[in-house]
Amino acid sequence: MWGASFYERASRLFQQYPSLSKLLVVATVSGGSLAAFHEGRPFHSRTAYAEAAQSEGESKKKKVVVLGTGWAGVSFLKNLKSSSYDVEVVSPHNYFLFTPLLPSITCGTVEPRSIVEPIRSITKKKGLDVQFREAACYKIDPQNKKVYCRTTQDNNSCGKNEFSVDYDYLIIAMGAKSNTFNTPGVEEHAHFLKAVEDALKIRKSVIDCFERASLPCISEEERKKILHFVVVGGGPAGVEFAAELHDFVSEDLAKLYPSLKDDVSITLLEAGDHILNMFDRRITKFAEEKFSRDGIDVKTGSQVVKVTAKEISTKERTTGHVSSTPYGMCLWATGIGARPEIIEFMKQIGQANRRVLATDEWLRVEGCDGIYAVGDCATVNQRRIMEDISHIISKADTGKSGTLSLEEFHGVIDDVMERYPQLELHLKSKQMSSIHDLLKNSSEKYSSTEVDIETFKSALSQADSQMKNLPATAQVAAQQGAYLANCFNRMEECEKYPEGPLRFRGEGRHRFHPFRYKHLGMFAPLGGEQTAFQLPGDWVSIGYSSQWLWYSVYVSKLVSWRTRVLVVSDWGRRFIFGRDSSRI
Amino acid sequence: MWGASFYERASRLFQQYPSLSKLLVVATVSGGSLAAFHEGRPFHSRTAYAEAAQSEGESKKKKVVVLGTGWAGVSFLKNLKSSSYDVEVVSPHNYFLFTPLLPSITCGTVEPRSIVEPIRSITKKKGLDVQFREAACYKIDPQNKKVYCRTTQDNNSCGKNEFSVDYDYLIIAMGAKSNTFNTPGVEEHAHFLKAVEDALKIRKSVIDCFERASLPCISEEERKKILHFVVVGGGPAGVEFAAELHDFVSEDLAKLYPSLKDDVSITLLEAGDHILNMFDRRITKFAEEKFSRDGIDVKTGSQVVKVTAKEISTKERTTGHVSSTPYGMCLWATGIGARPEIIEFMKQIGQANRRVLATDEWLRVEGCDGIYAVGDCATVNQRRIMEDISHIISKADTGKSGTLSLEEFHGVIDDVMERYPQLELHLKSKQMSSIHDLLKNSSEKYSSTEVDIETFKSALSQADSQMKNLPATAQVAAQQGAYLANCFNRMEECEKYPEGPLRFRGEGRHRFHPFRYKHLGMFAPLGGEQTAFQLPGDWVSIGYSSQWLWYSVYVSKLVSWRTRVLVVSDWGRRFIFGRDSSRI
Repeated sequence: MWGASFYERASRLFQQYPSLSKLLVVATVSGGSLAAFHEGRPFHSRTAYAEAAQSEGESKKKKVVVLGTGWAGVSFLKNLKSSSYDVEVVSPHNYFLFTPLLPSITCGTVEPRSIVEPIRSITKKKGLDVQFREAACYKIDPQNKKVYCRTTQDNNSCGKNEFSVDYDYLIIAMGAKSNTFNTPGVEEHAHFLKAVEDALKIRKSVIDCFERASLPCISEEERKKILHFVVVGGGPAGVEFAAELHDFVSEDLAKLYPSLKDDVSITLLEAGDHILNMFDRRITKFAEEKFSRDGIDVKTGSQVVKVTAKEISTKERTTGHVSSTPYGMCLWATGIGARPEIIEFMKQIGQANRRVLATDEWLRVEGCDGIYAVGDCATVNQRRIMEDISHIISKADTGKSGTLSLEEFHGVIDDVMERYPQLELHLKSKQMSSIHDLLKNSSEKYSSTEVDIETFKSALSQADSQMKNLPATAQVAAQQGAYLANCFNRMEECEKYPEGPLRFRGEGRHRFHPFRYKHLGMFAPLGGEQTAFQLPGDWVSIGYSSQWLWYSVYVSKLVSWRTRVLVVSDWGRRFIFGRDSSRI
Repeated sequence: MWGASFYERASRLFQQYPSLSKLLVVATVSGGSLAAFHEGRPFHSRTAYAEAAQSEGESKKKKVVVLGTGWAGVSFLKNLKSSSYDVEVVSPHNYFLFTPLLPSITCGTVEPRSIVEPIRSITKKKGLDVQFREAACYKIDPQNKKVYCRTTQDNNSCGKNEFSVDYDYLIIAMGAKSNTFNTPGVEEHAHFLKAVEDALKIRKSVIDCFERASLPCISEEERKKILHFVVVGGGPAGVEFAAELHDFVSEDLAKLYPSLKDDVSITLLEAGDHILNMFDRRITKFAEEKFSRDGIDVKTGSQVVKVTAKEISTKERTTGHVSSTPYGMCLWATGIGARPEIIEFMKQIGQANRRVLATDEWLRVEGCDGIYAVGDCATVNQRRIMEDISHIISKADTGKSGTLSLEEFHGVIDDVMERYPQLELHLKSKQMSSIHDLLKNSSEKYSSTEVDIETFKSALSQADSQMKNLPATAQVAAQQGAYLANCFNRMEECEKYPEGPLRFRGEGRHRFHPFRYKHLGMFAPLGGEQTAFQLPGDWVSIGYSSQWLWYSVYVSKLVSWRTRVLVVSDWGRRFIFGRDSSRI
């Protein structure tokens, strides 16, 4: 195979794998005038093309480097249409992981390979000119437009382990890490649920507890300790894991470990007043009642202060009382924090005093050139209207009259609405249909022909209270990635014909519309084929019907036909054969 | 759930899971007179029954301890019918692994969960009174009939880690470990292929090599080194892995890593003259030719003398020349050796000078009482006819006449044939249909009415040369386990009415027929939908047709309906979507 001449090999390969012809066509199309050359060397066409393009003195493609292959990074790649960029992706994972089904892996409801898709196969399907590097970026150098990377492998010693990549545009989509809030012992003793490896470790650990509890050298009392599962954090991840674990125990393990069934206990610790507190109160109440019926012990107002190998110490928020409970396995799912590389980068660019990397509404990292950040690693630092109010007014008051004519007002108000999304939220929260209602409300001096500047100011000033950070969800990350790809796709076009709002502090318009998050609803599986579903507009559904809604949304969102088929067959398999309890 | 009273819980559970009623029925049937008691406490019935049986002074069940859950151990469990034993299984794996498909896991043709089945679910289906302990036996004490065990978990510190188990009968079915022949560096740098974990590590390692070779810091030369895969050992495991790897590279990875395809090389090192040397020469030749066409470099007569992190050193058998080759990943598949616990045990029972634990033809460990060994951890130490020849003759020559009348001859010859299987093999090898031919052949003094003792002796003496050890295969292990279970099932019956051959050195008959291996054929998948198949009686089939035979044999042999369905769906999935290359 490796010894035969290239032509022989290539032609045999094409006979064997007709789908490669497609690759050749793609390469040819993107290569344009080099088609003849390509036909001879399909496999090297990308590199060859890049080299040839440079040597022929064509204008060099801009290099886009994407760090990370989570929701944000992959959404960017999947939506990038233009072949006018040279894209290089650096990530420690060579696959995309469909994170919403991660809790299902912990108990074997779904298999890990069913919810991952290799990055190379995603970009290959898109026919993009993308290089993938399995490595972790450990340093960003914004001055020299370079990122420094290191392989995550430690078992192969051939060749160097570090390299650097130059960029014209950098997309930081590295995600976040689990936040331990510096609670002692968590890092060492608790499980997290961010990656496939975590979920597999949890699966083993659950079985380990059952096997250990089955040993004859374990006393009745120790058995109960070992079979005490503690989940810290009452958010969707913690709640879903607790529900999955309960189902796994009652549906599958109870049959195989009948004598242990009565010794199992599950505790869900939440520092706040309620679990699922970002959901509607009806859902929270339903979930708490369901868990209580299921025998899952929900302890709210209980903050974990220390974790040791055998015990977990909690402090009651109301009484301040600290107590310790023995446990067998602990999942830590309390939220996310910035990754060390991001913290380092923030120090470099003067964001050291912030908790998370800040971008503007166009997802550009503040204080940097050509660097964008999307997903959990960053937050959109919304601009306060009051910061810019004098600029807005001077821009609006074209006649410098001290009041705004209706024409002048309409000349800026759409741009203001677009530039400062808090204004729309404020109107919504006040149940007002237009800005006129707000103006009318905030001053008696309101007239329908012109707008007093002080009235305008005081009306807008109320809106800043409505500024909210976007939640750290897959939905936000995916929308940001898609938004950014869309900007990159139309970079040249929008350079010539900017489509964004007026620049109040500068001249002209912004090139692009700012990023705007569209909330599509959220859901939390509660176990026992029950799911809570919350759509925008106060629409709440709980129960079996939403389980099916949940299934169908998940399946429609899955990455590829492969993952769709596999997840559905996993569900079918679980339904017929139950979950596997082999410790592998 | 855990808080409610037992009756409530139990009744709710039965409503929810009707299949548990079956468990209750099983428990009731085996419990007999304790049925009323069981109905109230279905989950504790086993323990309760054991306790009750003891306290009521009934004759205590004999305790059978099985060490290991491989082919031999599980085959024993699956064939054990009698509920008159108290069975305890100790194994570091809580599942049975269908090892013939292990090479398929290394490249993702089949998923690991598709070829494992939890021991508890196997024994539960059989309705057996079996306790399973996930632990490794580290010491056997044959004097006190005790085994000492230790948990294999290291992450949970609650309770003790060691315990001992008493036995009346001990079945050692612990398998073997990979044999490195003390070659330096193998343990540290090479991969083995004995367990699921090994196969998963290999799968990761293959992808690691491809990802590492894709990094920009790797030179052309280094890339070739990293993509050099070396398989040591030309037996079925090594050949199948090389074939699987070749298919994985050419069918799947070539599409995703097009620029690396030409840098991949696979080398198969075999110390002997041919690969697959236990197969028919036609198969060996076909395999060698196919591998050569595929570009797999088969080097025979090449013995590995040292492995380092970067290089593998080989010595040519003919020239003695030692050379080193850089490599990226190395699989060591040269055969098996005794496990350290078994070596320790052999020292205790006076088998220190042997390479592997020896049993007699009834699979009883020589020099021990009530200990049996089955599968790869042991070998049947066949008795030479010449050791017993004088006893045979004195038993045969009832008239003490110095010659054997035809009646006397027929009185022992069937027992001799059964007791010494080499005799039948010898006849077969000489293409003789009966012992008379042999006698006729070995002496001119042969008459059809009586047999001269010297003639008899000299005829039998030839047979000992035909003694062969059984191969270390799943087939042998499974047959041994089933044989032993059958003996245990009929222990009492055969005690009264022994069915085995005459005891030449003692009185009466052996209780059981000795174990006799029935070879059902063997096959080796050679990649590219080709399989070599060899059935007893010189029947050889190579090619696509035997691939289907291979599929159907595998499926029919799979442990449960679950594993059958999953393996078939894995094959279908591979056919449609290819193998996944995500590094998880």
